Amino acid sequence: MRGNNYLIINKLKDLGLEISFEERTDFIGFKVKPLVIVYPQGEDDVINIVRLAREFRISIVPWGAGTSLTGAVSCDGCILLDMRRMNKILEINTIDWYVRVQPGVVLDDLNKELSKYGFFFPPDPASHYMCTVGIIATDAGGMRALKYGTVKDWVLALRVVLPTGEVIKVGEPLKKNRTGYDLVHLFVGSEGTLGIITEAWLRIIPLPKRKVQTLIVYLDDMETLAKFVYEVRRRGIMPELMEYMDPYAINAVNQAFNSGLKVADGGLVIIMIEEDLIDELLNIRINGLNIVTINEEGARRIYELRSRAGEAIKAVYGSFYSEDITVPISRLAEAIIRLKELGDKYRKPMPILAHIGDGNMHPHILYKPGEEELAQRMYYEVARIAIELGGTISGEHGIGLQKRELLYEQYLVRNNIKTLEVMKNIKRLFDPNDIMNPNKYIY
Amino acid sequence: MRGNNYLIINKLKDLGLEISFEERTDFIGFKVKPLVIVYPQGEDDVINIVRLAREFRISIVPWGAGTSLTGAVSCDGCILLDMRRMNKILEINTIDWYVRVQPGVVLDDLNKELSKYGFFFPPDPASHYMCTVGIIATDAGGMRALKYGTVKDWVLALRVVLPTGEVIKVGEPLKKNRTGYDLVHLFVGSEGTLGIITEAWLRIIPLPKRKVQTLIVYLDDMETLAKFVYEVRRRGIMPELMEYMDPYAINAVNQAFNSGLKVADGGLVIIMIEEDLIDELLNIRINGLNIVTINEEGARRIYELRSRAGEAIKAVYGSFYSEDITVPISRLAEAIIRLKELGDKYRKPMPILAHIGDGNMHPHILYKPGEEELAQRMYYEVARIAIELGGTISGEHGIGLQKRELLYEQYLVRNNIKTLEVMKNIKRLFDPNDIMNPNKYIY
Repeated sequence: MRGNNYLIINKLKDLGLEISFEERTDFIGFKVKPLVIVYPQGEDDVINIVRLAREFRISIVPWGAGTSLTGAVSCDGCILLDMRRMNKILEINTIDWYVRVQPGVVLDDLNKELSKYGFFFPPDPASHYMCTVGIIATDAGGMRALKYGTVKDWVLALRVVLPTGEVIKVGEPLKKNRTGYDLVHLFVGSEGTLGIITEAWLRIIPLPKRKVQTLIVYLDDMETLAKFVYEVRRRGIMPELMEYMDPYAINAVNQAFNSGLKVADGGLVIIMIEEDLIDELLNIRINGLNIVTINEEGARRIYELRSRAGEAIKAVYGSFYSEDITVPISRLAEAIIRLKELGDKYRKPMPILAHIGDGNMHPHILYKPGEEELAQRMYYEVARIAIELGGTISGEHGIGLQKRELLYEQYLVRNNIKTLEVMKNIKRLFDPNDIMNPNKYIY
Repeated sequence: MRGNNYLIINKLKDLGLEISFEERTDFIGFKVKPLVIVYPQGEDDVINIVRLAREFRISIVPWGAGTSLTGAVSCDGCILLDMRRMNKILEINTIDWYVRVQPGVVLDDLNKELSKYGFFFPPDPASHYMCTVGIIATDAGGMRALKYGTVKDWVLALRVVLPTGEVIKVGEPLKKNRTGYDLVHLFVGSEGTLGIITEAWLRIIPLPKRKVQTLIVYLDDMETLAKFVYEVRRRGIMPELMEYMDPYAINAVNQAFNSGLKVADGGLVIIMIEEDLIDELLNIRINGLNIVTINEEGARRIYELRSRAGEAIKAVYGSFYSEDITVPISRLAEAIIRLKELGDKYRKPMPILAHIGDGNMHPHILYKPGEEELAQRMYYEVARIAIELGGTISGEHGIGLQKRELLYEQYLVRNNIKTLEVMKNIKRLFDPNDIMNPNKYIY
């Protein structure tokens, strides 16, 4: 095997590819120990690397910015494909409303460029300032997902290098296109297990023209939070954004960024809503609710603070696993009580950030070195709350390494193992040698 | 084989299934000559029928309301699954914003029921008054697709009987759910080739609260139409609806429904737009444009007339094939010129209806008995215009029987035959005996 490794590295060198040798750690702390890191400059490089991997049956893992929250880019002995050299914006089309990009483009760079034309790409994971367009592979969400959906709603077409080294283009840069099976959405969220995305056509839209008002809702307790969100849904109110930070998270933000946010016992909800819809929201009367409207400067600041809350939690509390459950809004109250009980049981703070309008919650499971196993146990228990309440173990972060067993559990509890079998068959169909990000996701 | 047929029919009877024997014609005129028609009452019936079909290697074709515009439900000697007995609305959830339905529910019945709760299911194919929820299988679009997308954007989860007779549930009734490959979108638009949908969880939203103004834009000529749509896009204006009828279509509507619409040489565009966005639209200055705002009663009437324009064309001009090309908005002007040249070449009227805001056009190829071949040739030529202009042969009607070869052509021209191969492999994976709506779609 060692001999093969030398051979692989030499062949990569012969192909004129830029390579390096180093270990990496992803955002959450998962170890990435590649045999070699390769930096493809274009699709042809990717094809050559995949062919080589196929020949030597060595696994390939693509890396964008390492912002995975599930260990999806961890590996041991793989070829790590660092996609950041493929970072060109190839075309901005302001009539057909799409942008054609390479996967290594940083999301904020894309939106900065688009804003010059009066356009934007709505998905905004909290890591927007560092993550790349490669987030297609996880179907990332973000704060604006409440209004705009997740990445899957914005991908029109893809070029993909298959595990055979062949290239396909799926989809067309057209909003309406009904020519055969929807393979675009098979690749979106497939976490590098079916192929390597080398180009993407993303739908873009004009920057919003309507005035949006930002509100902060302070909550006396967690029960009030559940009642409030329920009421927003019951009344059919559709904000742009509805983000939750619990008191632990607010504390972290206050400490890390000296932001001086009020720490209400039930935390706070940030709401952005188009001005003409605001009255309906202000009509909600629940005890323990304190709704404050804020100005534009304050709105920008609170959006920024919410974006960087994960960073703040890391700085203040140390390492964490970020859970990603979604529960039906109708079960939100129960979910919150169960999460609180769990925190009490382990006597650990569990900062919660949530895209609360969609029932998507990120309890942060803190751990110190050596506590990984305990943390993993808590992580499982959180996920099981979602499963029991008819929710799901992942709303937007995906499965990766960390949720493989949980994925199985969810399908088992739902009496739906056959669906997993179908997924495995699809994986086998695309990647019979199991070289694409193996041992993760569906396995 | 004849002996087998008796056996199949007797076995269906033994299962206590309601059956009948008749030939049918779909909306477009394709013949449906089943061996037997079966009317399943629930999922168990579907399972039994699929198992029988598998045992005897006989094909199964599901039928909702026969509104396919591509011969997708035509067959000769199949078991026709008439799904209209499975027409229950099983659950309306106004907190989690979904509805759970059987596939035989008529779309207008669904929306009538939802409206009692202040909700709706946005996709509105022109056949909304007769088509069933089974339109999931074509990923139907409609007039509101400009704002709301097509059916694919509204399906959360499905129960599907696979060709093996096994049942899977794909997706969850949650807006955010990232647990494995997106199989929901593999089934949406798969035209009955991968399995039979027995239950669907559809996303619903509150009825719009903002006031919408309807405008009719009369156009002096077709070039003005292209300029106008281009300008709407360039300015980043987002109407709710933007529908086109050409002079032939207007004539048909006037004759069939005595509607007295003005017949401008370039036809007319119906626009619905939220009131606060209207000024931007009225600011567009192009020669040959006459924009008229109409009242609510007029708005309802013109929406109804546009919905039934296909029916009117059939009544006035006789049989037709409905094309369904989509072209990039940036190529719309060229497309319109090419279509006009084609009509002139064949010296036939070719009424055009179009969801023009998305570049999705339905030229209607008229034919009299005996002219089917000529019509099919024109149909191909229309589709080829779309292919050449970087568009697609189908925006929302799908492939069925009629566009099999065109599908191949499009992928060939785009240098993308490998993608078709992948699709074929998926079909084979799900349906190795090729019993589900065979010889159509990808074949």
